Amino acid sequence: MKTWQGRIQVRADSLFEAFTSSVIQDRRLAPYDIRASRVHARALARAGVISTEDADRLESALYEIAEEVASGDLLWRDELEDVHTHVESRLREKLGDLADALHTGRSRNDQIATDLRLYVKDQILEVLETILDLQSSLVMLANRYRSAVMPGYTHLQQAQPVLIAQPLLAYVSMLGRDWERFRDALARTDRSPLGCGALAGATFPLDRDFLAEECGFAGPIANSLDAVSDRDFVVEFVTAAALCMTHLSRLSEDLILWSSVEFGFLRLPDAFASGSSMMPQKKNPDVPELIRGKAALVIGDASAALTLVKGLPLGYNRDLQEDKTPLFRAADTLLPSLQILAAMVPEVEFDTERTERAVSSFAMATDLADHLVQQGVPFREAHRLVGGLVSACLREGRDLADLGPTDLQSAGIHTESLPALTPAASVRRKRTAGSTHPDAVADQLSAVESEIASRRIETESIRGDDRS
Amino acid sequence: MKTWQGRIQVRADSLFEAFTSSVIQDRRLAPYDIRASRVHARALARAGVISTEDADRLESALYEIAEEVASGDLLWRDELEDVHTHVESRLREKLGDLADALHTGRSRNDQIATDLRLYVKDQILEVLETILDLQSSLVMLANRYRSAVMPGYTHLQQAQPVLIAQPLLAYVSMLGRDWERFRDALARTDRSPLGCGALAGATFPLDRDFLAEECGFAGPIANSLDAVSDRDFVVEFVTAAALCMTHLSRLSEDLILWSSVEFGFLRLPDAFASGSSMMPQKKNPDVPELIRGKAALVIGDASAALTLVKGLPLGYNRDLQEDKTPLFRAADTLLPSLQILAAMVPEVEFDTERTERAVSSFAMATDLADHLVQQGVPFREAHRLVGGLVSACLREGRDLADLGPTDLQSAGIHTESLPALTPAASVRRKRTAGSTHPDAVADQLSAVESEIASRRIETESIRGDDRS
Amino acid sequence: MKTWQGRIQVRADSLFEAFTSSVIQDRRLAPYDIRASRVHARALARAGVISTEDADRLESALYEIAEEVASGDLLWRDELEDVHTHVESRLREKLGDLADALHTGRSRNDQIATDLRLYVKDQILEVLETILDLQSSLVMLANRYRSAVMPGYTHLQQAQPVLIAQPLLAYVSMLGRDWERFRDALARTDRSPLGCGALAGATFPLDRDFLAEECGFAGPIANSLDAVSDRDFVVEFVTAAALCMTHLSRLSEDLILWSSVEFGFLRLPDAFASGSSMMPQKKNPDVPELIRGKAALVIGDASAALTLVKGLPLGYNRDLQEDKTPLFRAADTLLPSLQILAAMVPEVEFDTERTERAVSSFAMATDLADHLVQQGVPFREAHRLVGGLVSACLREGRDLADLGPTDLQSAGIHTESLPALTPAASVRRKRTAGSTHPDAVADQLSAVESEIASRRIETESIRGDDRS
Amino acid sequence: MKTWQGRIQVRADSLFEAFTSSVIQDRRLAPYDIRASRVHARALARAGVISTEDADRLESALYEIAEEVASGDLLWRDELEDVHTHVESRLREKLGDLADALHTGRSRNDQIATDLRLYVKDQILEVLETILDLQSSLVMLANRYRSAVMPGYTHLQQAQPVLIAQPLLAYVSMLGRDWERFRDALARTDRSPLGCGALAGATFPLDRDFLAEECGFAGPIANSLDAVSDRDFVVEFVTAAALCMTHLSRLSEDLILWSSVEFGFLRLPDAFASGSSMMPQKKNPDVPELIRGKAALVIGDASAALTLVKGLPLGYNRDLQEDKTPLFRAADTLLPSLQILAAMVPEVEFDTERTERAVSSFAMATDLADHLVQQGVPFREAHRLVGGLVSACLREGRDLADLGPTDLQSAGIHTESLPALTPAASVRRKRTAGSTHPDAVADQLSAVESEIASRRIETESIRGDDRS
Repeated sequence: MKTWQGRIQVRADSLFEAFTSSVIQDRRLAPYDIRASRVHARALARAGVISTEDADRLESALYEIAEEVASGDLLWRDELEDVHTHVESRLREKLGDLADALHTGRSRNDQIATDLRLYVKDQILEVLETILDLQSSLVMLANRYRSAVMPGYTHLQQAQPVLIAQPLLAYVSMLGRDWERFRDALARTDRSPLGCGALAGATFPLDRDFLAEECGFAGPIANSLDAVSDRDFVVEFVTAAALCMTHLSRLSEDLILWSSVEFGFLRLPDAFASGSSMMPQKKNPDVPELIRGKAALVIGDASAALTLVKGLPLGYNRDLQEDKTPLFRAADTLLPSLQILAAMVPEVEFDTERTERAVSSFAMATDLADHLVQQGVPFREAHRLVGGLVSACLREGRDLADLGPTDLQSAGIHTESLPALTPAASVRRKRTAGSTHPDAVADQLSAVESEIASRRIETESIRGDDRS
Repeated sequence: MKTWQGRIQVRADSLFEAFTSSVIQDRRLAPYDIRASRVHARALARAGVISTEDADRLESALYEIAEEVASGDLLWRDELEDVHTHVESRLREKLGDLADALHTGRSRNDQIATDLRLYVKDQILEVLETILDLQSSLVMLANRYRSAVMPGYTHLQQAQPVLIAQPLLAYVSMLGRDWERFRDALARTDRSPLGCGALAGATFPLDRDFLAEECGFAGPIANSLDAVSDRDFVVEFVTAAALCMTHLSRLSEDLILWSSVEFGFLRLPDAFASGSSMMPQKKNPDVPELIRGKAALVIGDASAALTLVKGLPLGYNRDLQEDKTPLFRAADTLLPSLQILAAMVPEVEFDTERTERAVSSFAMATDLADHLVQQGVPFREAHRLVGGLVSACLREGRDLADLGPTDLQSAGIHTESLPALTPAASVRRKRTAGSTHPDAVADQLSAVESEIASRRIETESIRGDDRS
Repeated sequence: MKTWQGRIQVRADSLFEAFTSSVIQDRRLAPYDIRASRVHARALARAGVISTEDADRLESALYEIAEEVASGDLLWRDELEDVHTHVESRLREKLGDLADALHTGRSRNDQIATDLRLYVKDQILEVLETILDLQSSLVMLANRYRSAVMPGYTHLQQAQPVLIAQPLLAYVSMLGRDWERFRDALARTDRSPLGCGALAGATFPLDRDFLAEECGFAGPIANSLDAVSDRDFVVEFVTAAALCMTHLSRLSEDLILWSSVEFGFLRLPDAFASGSSMMPQKKNPDVPELIRGKAALVIGDASAALTLVKGLPLGYNRDLQEDKTPLFRAADTLLPSLQILAAMVPEVEFDTERTERAVSSFAMATDLADHLVQQGVPFREAHRLVGGLVSACLREGRDLADLGPTDLQSAGIHTESLPALTPAASVRRKRTAGSTHPDAVADQLSAVESEIASRRIETESIRGDDRS
Repeated sequence: MKTWQGRIQVRADSLFEAFTSSVIQDRRLAPYDIRASRVHARALARAGVISTEDADRLESALYEIAEEVASGDLLWRDELEDVHTHVESRLREKLGDLADALHTGRSRNDQIATDLRLYVKDQILEVLETILDLQSSLVMLANRYRSAVMPGYTHLQQAQPVLIAQPLLAYVSMLGRDWERFRDALARTDRSPLGCGALAGATFPLDRDFLAEECGFAGPIANSLDAVSDRDFVVEFVTAAALCMTHLSRLSEDLILWSSVEFGFLRLPDAFASGSSMMPQKKNPDVPELIRGKAALVIGDASAALTLVKGLPLGYNRDLQEDKTPLFRAADTLLPSLQILAAMVPEVEFDTERTERAVSSFAMATDLADHLVQQGVPFREAHRLVGGLVSACLREGRDLADLGPTDLQSAGIHTESLPALTPAASVRRKRTAGSTHPDAVADQLSAVESEIASRRIETESIRGDDRS
């Protein structure tokens, strides 16, 4: 065995390069880095720092490099520590000293902040679209099962019957808030650090409005120190992703429960569950389980992103290099999770006969009590009477729905028109907006359909602005 | 020693009550609970469920209870498990059976969701105002030190001189984003669960628009199941609080560093730092240290809130009772932290002589290189030349600012008008918007002053709507 | 509305006191603070700093104060910021200037570190005992249901039958590891900071071994700076608590599932579940739900504790005051959770008829395949054959157990002695140690019973050492 | 633009494979998977399930595959979802149907649990060794600077002088506790799941003691359900890693502060800090900054690992696939961080002239007060007198060390032998074990040197057992 001195000396040479390199991670930023460099070249020409011809040569070469990146032709090398160095080095191979001109009035600090913001903007747009996809899938499923009933739960105990569409629409609502959160986050991400230099601004008369606009940003960041050290947009993306993942996790939890033998409410599509040649009856809900697990990872990422920025003094600190880890992982987890659910949900098959049969008659006890109250029985008395009935049923192994007039009278319930104690009647008895009454559900469906449609247009329009 | 059987049996009776009681925590919700109950009473009358007279009696009694709560006269008792039970029990003492009428068309599930939303709305309004207070304090301090220079840092190494106002304005920018995030969160919090019952809606024709409006909500929640189980507004408040706390922690980190003997840039006001009779020279930055520590707690709360909701199936689950722990702690941490900094910041005294003297002449190396580039020296060559000069200075223990024409010429720098290598000249050399140039700083100051003013009006107007 | 200047000035005076005071939290440390002070008085006498008589007077007065604390007679006042100040102030009332002697060779920094360590030691002892209580409860339940079968799950899908004792013993195993982790943590907590002063050691010849021993510590901490700034023992307690809570959360998840109408495997005892007068059939699993929720809080506490210490430079920093928040909450959550489960678990009633009936015949498919392999059929072929049988059963709505020789032969299975495809036979077919075979379960039970017994003795012995 | 239906249908086919595949991550488990399979083959032969010849053939082929993995010759293919499938598929290419025999009495669930445990054991051994390396590096540096003084801090304010060795040894102590924690975690990791099947045990008479021993485990896990679903060892590794990273982060924080221009206490070695050609004076502490950042990531991993396991019911759930993400990242972060610090620390150069000069004379105020107390002045009076002196000095801009007898007398201090108020004298005045007195530091150094030496032997011995 080598002594520790031996071991650490050997390490010294290679460790630093490996420890500080970020290129494996940040190569995905290359297209953004190149785009920002093109804009910077033009801004330098406008500021009279370089000639228009030089700017054109820089732009052309950068376009070529972008294509090399896209086609996979650019060679990524371990000894070039980050994405910026790769682009610069390739540019230098093409243009010689002119490549250096791009350093004028720019630093790594505003450059990486710009690249990251452009990346996050793109990710948010993807997320916005994919949330709408999943909402559409849920709406499609809800429409298909809009007249079927199932037990509704509190405390995982049956409480009252609901239409199958009702929980599905609850998930549509959650996703609607996620959509808003990402759209709000986009507004704060959409600001340009370009022209802020290392921390204090640039000594060349760069037009920051021009830089921002050409990069597709809504405008420049107000303060140069903030511009290079702010990572709020990363934290906000990751926390919004974590919250969205908790919704997908809750949906997954329900899918797992409902597809168990004991519940038996639905069948997951074969393409999204693994089985075994020997146990064809067993269909493991792999996708929902993995999503439930992945949600934990993104919660950890949110924690990491917040902790990362917590203790920093102002200005760029190298710690910030690590913000890419939670950011990229959150993006790489959220998007596929949304996509696979969007693809899976429309294929889910409910066993509506079973969901209806599963509703215990006791889940209609509230209906009975409400009925008595409507007949004028005081609230507390009504509850006492119904409680007595249910207890009797439980003792005698009978269903609440089976009770006849004699049973009711002997229980002290004097009523002529007992309500129908069926799940279908129960949901029809609801009278408030947003309830599980079929009409209220129909209203919800048409409202979310309009909302999704108008948000698709809004998303397209944001994307259009970005590209223009 | 008692055997374990002995011990656990004794516990059985009292443990459940203690374990499930939430009243110590949720008594702060009493005013909101009462307000929502008043509105519910009126809605029941409108729906014809109770008479107008009964509604009036309920409202009057609830007003009385609100006053008992406010004056501390309401007795909080251990055996009544939560805030709702306390209000109901008191109402029953006043009105007898009529008190029960409030149960009609309402459940604990929509009730607690309503209380919590009203509470969070109030907290957000407080936060919005207090953020503006702290921004005003920072702007006041920035104005006072708008012409003084200090070193600007990257990697905690001096990089370039900045005006003291520049980092202060960076913090104003961070807080500006916090303000927006809380305002956006408010929009999603401002929705009414009333009329959704336990999960499926109510069987009485309650007008959910009326219920929402009378409680000061912008409108009802679309889906009854979502209404009772959604806690996104809690998670969003806590994560926004955590991000805001990281900003306060970063500011604190700078205050701690800058008030150390080694930096010596500022003096914290006596009222906000602890000393010792024996060591009067030692002023401990207790407030910034505590804020740095408290930021960690709120990051933990964000993690807790996300983890709490992650694994739940749909519908109300008792787990949700615990959302109050991170929510209340986040609110109880963020507000005082903002307040104490708002009070402390204007009293901070910078030692501007020392901050200026502290700027190393080498922090002007970039200026020199930029100057050469402006004189036509190629970028890489300019950097090489300046690097050589600095190295020589370091070797000979000289300052960059002390070099004369001979030194420059012997270093290969042929230039007639060397720029003044002083901090004051350096900041004046910046030419981009948002930079640390005095004019750019003046522009930033007037922009944030307008923004703060208009946001004060906006906040007041939101509060007004809420009260109306 | 007051202007912000108005508001912040009013605040300035009172804010600092409220913001920095920790007495509400740390009053629980009073007994430990007093104990350490008594020992310090004796050490000062041994070092010749004070006379033996003065040491006796200090000790007596401290005993009195300890009794005042215990009886609730000590008045806690807002203007005295922490627990130390309260004790000192009371001591001064009793002894005048002599009280000051206790400051000699001691600082707040080693004092609070000592108090916290004594507190954590006590908490760990409580946790060790209570874990054994819950293990005993689980063993009692496992013994009661050692011959009853239920479905065993993977992916929440039925996989193979198990004895009810098997999952219960899995939880006993998890708790056994928790016990070890807390015992290991105790060893690292059990070290004395006394005699380390503010950071550099004391200028009086205090005997640190004596100080440690008299306070019940296993020995002194090696390095004075580490002694005052180490909070590893807090982090280790909180993370061990978080992991233990995840076990309680998993157990709770199973209890919630198994007590649902759909599973119907068990009945939670009435004393530990809430019902409603109207819905007597509905028993909400409040305790397991709350534990599941509380687990999220302690995970947040672990995150907070780690984040708190992450960014600190060496030496005491006021941030550390906040370590008490996650520590106390973790302790206040874990202990009652263990206690209430220890009390509840023995009262759980399984419906063994239903658990046995619930086992799907298809859960015995593995048994059939294993049988074929034992008969010499190649593994892959055996699986193919059984898969075909199950598929046929599913198509025809038959049970695997119902198949007769003809069915098997027509499926290509030529075997004379088909195994009994009942749950009871299935568990008996297992042949490895630790399996669900009744004999293996009996072995597990007797092994854990011995382990619990010997750990009770070990815990008692640690407690004895501590008191001696 | 494609419609959402179009988009999701295209996705359906490929998404599932990509979403559920874990092979990119878990290929590092191949050597462990193969080792466990070899042992399983032998156990099957011992149990009479296969012949010894077949076991030999299986073993030989597995050895070959292990070599293909080691040499990089094994082709990793996207369509084979995990590491097990790759090994099996290659085995089938070599041996045909005999490969299937390995499925007998084993499932994916006990297999992956085994692989992971073997991996974590290896990682812990690496960590144990590397912690000792870093401790040795710190001891080497402490030895080099054992007689030099520097300011000691509390609240980042100078408090008392210490020897440079004192904070370095504090870090050695922290790492010593980390070492213990990993060793304790190893004991709980070192248990074998083999022979537990999918959840209930195996139907073949596999000798679990043999399986455990041959795989290098200390023994089998007691309960089959626990064996396949326990991930405590993952959580324990990740939380121990997170705590260790906070220590490295604290050390980094001190290195960053101390290498700033303002402190100027030390120079980081060139090989571990980045500079710039133009600003040779600026040496960015990249390595410590990155470590500070990476600590945040591992805290996030701890949160993720805990959250992941929190809500699972018993038995294997696919969520557990995601435990590898936090586990692998924690391992991949901790080890290089320890290694690079171990390599960097011995190259750190303190500027001992500057550290000594930096000690403010006021940091000796405590010494003066202690001296007066030793002369018989009551504690409070001594503090009052010294406080007055310091205040006077501050007012007059003088140093405490400059005061003469007249100053003292006029301040009411009547003493003949004032102590020398130099940093060197101050540290020599400390009289407790573990203090910063040179002798106490020498004792600490020799104690930790012995401890490191004996732990190196212990680590080697554990590794030896594992290999045997």
